[in-house]
Amino acid sequence: MSYRRFDTELIVRPDDIDMNNHVHNSKYLDYVLFARYDQMGRCYGMSMDDFLSQGWVWVVKACFIEFKRSLNIEPIVVRTWLDSVEKSDVKVGFQIFKKKGMKLSAEGYFLNTMIDSKSGRAVPIPDRVIQQYAQFME
Amino acid sequence: MSYRRFDTELIVRPDDIDMNNHVHNSKYLDYVLFARYDQMGRCYGMSMDDFLSQGWVWVVKACFIEFKRSLNIEPIVVRTWLDSVEKSDVKVGFQIFKKKGMKLSAEGYFLNTMIDSKSGRAVPIPDRVIQQYAQFME
Amino acid sequence: MSYRRFDTELIVRPDDIDMNNHVHNSKYLDYVLFARYDQMGRCYGMSMDDFLSQGWVWVVKACFIEFKRSLNIEPIVVRTWLDSVEKSDVKVGFQIFKKKGMKLSAEGYFLNTMIDSKSGRAVPIPDRVIQQYAQFME
Amino acid sequence: MSYRRFDTELIVRPDDIDMNNHVHNSKYLDYVLFARYDQMGRCYGMSMDDFLSQGWVWVVKACFIEFKRSLNIEPIVVRTWLDSVEKSDVKVGFQIFKKKGMKLSAEGYFLNTMIDSKSGRAVPIPDRVIQQYAQFME
Repeated sequence: MSYRRFDTELIVRPDDIDMNNHVHNSKYLDYVLFARYDQMGRCYGMSMDDFLSQGWVWVVKACFIEFKRSLNIEPIVVRTWLDSVEKSDVKVGFQIFKKKGMKLSAEGYFLNTMIDSKSGRAVPIPDRVIQQYAQFME
Repeated sequence: MSYRRFDTELIVRPDDIDMNNHVHNSKYLDYVLFARYDQMGRCYGMSMDDFLSQGWVWVVKACFIEFKRSLNIEPIVVRTWLDSVEKSDVKVGFQIFKKKGMKLSAEGYFLNTMIDSKSGRAVPIPDRVIQQYAQFME
Repeated sequence: MSYRRFDTELIVRPDDIDMNNHVHNSKYLDYVLFARYDQMGRCYGMSMDDFLSQGWVWVVKACFIEFKRSLNIEPIVVRTWLDSVEKSDVKVGFQIFKKKGMKLSAEGYFLNTMIDSKSGRAVPIPDRVIQQYAQFME
Repeated sequence: MSYRRFDTELIVRPDDIDMNNHVHNSKYLDYVLFARYDQMGRCYGMSMDDFLSQGWVWVVKACFIEFKRSLNIEPIVVRTWLDSVEKSDVKVGFQIFKKKGMKLSAEGYFLNTMIDSKSGRAVPIPDRVIQQYAQFME
């Protein structure tokens, strides 16, 4: 049993390209962030705004990324999925593909912690948030 | 008589947002650059790659922008057009709209100079490049 | 009579370089923003935090920039000055130099409007803010 | 026995701050890149330009980062060191500190592969490059 995977398309912008004539390494993290924003509302039924208005915020605890194939100014697909949930933390897996031929460009994961925006402390992820994710399980 | 105007759509990314919770001012220039890349190939029939492979490069000489309405993480439309051509220089006008309601967010222009990438010097814009643009005149 | 000019040094970062192997055009605006932050506290005696804590915020109304000489990964100097004050608006002039030889790389101005962060409306710049600037006049 | 650690100072820029009013996650990678550039020339005796002019380029293969403490617009210290060398790969460890109190903000590592820029293939890291690093071993 595993969580469903969702895809978000976007196009690399010229300002993402660095001196090596490829997408700059750190921009990959921004692409994943974009996909999560898109997918929270469109796929999980709880937009980032809804989430924030509950007084919660996701904070990145750690991130790992492997770079497989460089990207140019081209359409890409960012796939993300919930890998696991534990107390206040979620592990979100991701893969980034060149849209043409769906060749893998990078993959990795984020560890995100759910924080109460007032206290600044980690809070156990509420059941209803987990259910929101779980109903989309395959 | 004036040159045709072309539209490019894109979606603001979360990494474009700054501490004021709106799109960071300098990102607007990147949106226009993105639109020009898109439109060179799709609308003018000479992609940036074609252009560069001729040994030419556009260099920004000056830029003016007025900010009218702030942008959030939302779809936007970037409209650009050739305003005038003179020797080595083109003046490119632009407007950025919120896609919803097509409300004007910013407008301005770029002055770009055509440079020979070997010599690094400005070159008169060749007739065939002007014609490439002119055939799209309204 | 004119307002004093202040200098801020910084070093270009590799992530500021774009596909043309020079500093990306839109980054110049970020350098000026950095210099204003630095100079508000260090030179004008009212840090950005102090300013924000009064319930005010500067919003960029317009910006003009001329690019004279490209920049590499190198130390630069950003010079800014108050050009004029009128009701809710200030015009801030700037010049960006390569530190080596103080060669001019770019120059231009920002028009900034002082906004009440609660109402979102422009407010006349208070006398004490103007005096804060004026005491540094040459 | 371990390789020497070097420190590079820099100041967070306002354009590094995101909607959460802290330094944007992906910028941390750019700070490490900046430190490596600085340290290659200043500490290892082989500037990035020297390195590139040999027909080599470092490509990031993977990256891991843990975020410990958020950063504001403030001076920071980026510490990096060679962790290990193996054939074409180096593992570079890093830590990012708030300069004030040297509190740890983030830590992690990069795996970089040395590439021949003509062939695009990984090349065994030459002895003289390793010696360049090794002479700085503690």
